[in-house]
Amino acid sequence: MYTKMKGVIAKNPGSAEQLTYTEMPKPQLTADDLLIEVHAAAVNRTDILNREGKMGYVENPIIGVEVAGVVVDANQHADFQIGDRVMGLVNGGAYAEYVALPEDRAMRIPQQVTFEQATAIPEVFLTAYQTMYWIGHLAEHETILIHAGASGVGTAAIQLAKQFSQATVIATAGSERKLDFCRELGADVTINYKEQAFDEEVLQATDDQGADVILDFVGASYWEKNLASITTDGRWVVIGVLGGSTVKHVNLMQLMMKRVQVTGTLLTPRSDAYKAALSKEFMEQVGPFIEAAQIHPIIDTVFPIEEVQQAHEHMEANQNIGKIVLRVKGDGTDE
Amino acid sequence: MYTKMKGVIAKNPGSAEQLTYTEMPKPQLTADDLLIEVHAAAVNRTDILNREGKMGYVENPIIGVEVAGVVVDANQHADFQIGDRVMGLVNGGAYAEYVALPEDRAMRIPQQVTFEQATAIPEVFLTAYQTMYWIGHLAEHETILIHAGASGVGTAAIQLAKQFSQATVIATAGSERKLDFCRELGADVTINYKEQAFDEEVLQATDDQGADVILDFVGASYWEKNLASITTDGRWVVIGVLGGSTVKHVNLMQLMMKRVQVTGTLLTPRSDAYKAALSKEFMEQVGPFIEAAQIHPIIDTVFPIEEVQQAHEHMEANQNIGKIVLRVKGDGTDE
Repeated sequence: MYTKMKGVIAKNPGSAEQLTYTEMPKPQLTADDLLIEVHAAAVNRTDILNREGKMGYVENPIIGVEVAGVVVDANQHADFQIGDRVMGLVNGGAYAEYVALPEDRAMRIPQQVTFEQATAIPEVFLTAYQTMYWIGHLAEHETILIHAGASGVGTAAIQLAKQFSQATVIATAGSERKLDFCRELGADVTINYKEQAFDEEVLQATDDQGADVILDFVGASYWEKNLASITTDGRWVVIGVLGGSTVKHVNLMQLMMKRVQVTGTLLTPRSDAYKAALSKEFMEQVGPFIEAAQIHPIIDTVFPIEEVQQAHEHMEANQNIGKIVLRVKGDGTDE
Repeated sequence: MYTKMKGVIAKNPGSAEQLTYTEMPKPQLTADDLLIEVHAAAVNRTDILNREGKMGYVENPIIGVEVAGVVVDANQHADFQIGDRVMGLVNGGAYAEYVALPEDRAMRIPQQVTFEQATAIPEVFLTAYQTMYWIGHLAEHETILIHAGASGVGTAAIQLAKQFSQATVIATAGSERKLDFCRELGADVTINYKEQAFDEEVLQATDDQGADVILDFVGASYWEKNLASITTDGRWVVIGVLGGSTVKHVNLMQLMMKRVQVTGTLLTPRSDAYKAALSKEFMEQVGPFIEAAQIHPIIDTVFPIEEVQQAHEHMEANQNIGKIVLRVKGDGTDE
């Protein structure tokens, strides 16, 4: 039995040039897993943190948390068969020819969706769904402020908020190109944070009421403006600290007066059971919208996996709109 | 028709000596109100803020947010009759001979509960119930850290957490007398915050897991220790800033890694509808426990309303265990 494959590891913690696509053992399956032949994987910021040695998949040196591919060993799970097209979150190991995917979070790929599109779905759509609904409790017709609207999670969040909740969506980004794209996805109000004080724009757009929910990828540098932008009883979800993690001045009385809920969250470190429940609910709720092509995965660039260094550098340059995808098998047309 | 009564106002914003019990008009009822002849009112920190001019009941200069008394005008509300004994949250005006109580948040006083005991129930028990269940989502057998365990809300929270949720209760206070009382109410672990590092004690008591829910009345000065004391996916409710409101260093990445939910909240400024829904659910859920004398209002001292200045000074001295009550009518024995 051939037990070798290729996968991407970081030779040493550090920059993108540490990444190497090299031969290593095929994954060992536990009873919970399916074995997937990977067609495409996608790049996430958590992968960069892992590459830099700042977080770790303790049991898996291979980078990557989401894949799309084909079941090649169903491992006695009756719900899946060899040949099934699936996507999902893995516990590391996505940048590889084969990966173990826990069966209870494998999601079937809708028929007209390619592998490269499919791998752009799990992380950003599950994160957007989780933060907006499970944590942010976004209700129909509420107003949501989505920072980094052209990012992977941003593009997913804008679509979900519009299609699902008929929300008023206010999106921020740092270029006109990105703001145009947010509007194409359905954003009602867009703000160039480099040129406008976003809190003033949010208050103006909401009759001084503020947003009901904030999706915050920026953290410290936006703290005061986010607090000014949120309404009474608002829900503020911190899912990134691109603008620094240390806030130097937090006024708790303001949090009390506005009765704000601030929740920090990360999807990757959550339990297997949580990811399974989230994947299941997501497919029940959002799957039909994807099948009907009302909600789309947004792809910025596809790199062959041999160019994984360039793919990471592209994300670090922060110019992408939507997801950066790694093609592991095929040429993207033979699906 | 005699339209005068006596009530307490602050002559000018300032210290307790500004309080005066003086003649003024009886309250005007809206269609939503019952008219209550007040037998007892209770003192809350929000009353002190109002006295100091830091918050305001815009429409009511009379201090006080909770009462117990008798319906003297049912105002065509069929659910109540003249003579009914009720308690509840009012929109200011409690320190007076008569007050308007919105009918949909009037709670019937259980038979064996006196007026002075009854007025000790609404604010602290509704606050404890709201923060622990509606915001903190305390589940059965979870662990809750209750700061200021001997305060009004603290004594209510300890009893609710034990009776309702069979929770493990960790309470802090600043004297052995207060800690003894917390244990009498059911606290499993008590910590003298003046002598012990409470975060270390919490971690030791929870096998290094931390508390699932924190009720925080202290704010800034406890921030770091609370963050160290909370478990992954913990819920941290900030309902007071006795230790200052400005936190000088907040690490958002730690909030994300621990996936902590921090919610600021206040009960008094919430909407009439919110208070009505909370009062109704509270009486359905907790009323039977009060009737069965399994949950008790905790009274520190009863002052005649003429001694309202001393009552406020007693709260400001911070030595009370449980509620400070003002007797408005009767001698406390004729009920």
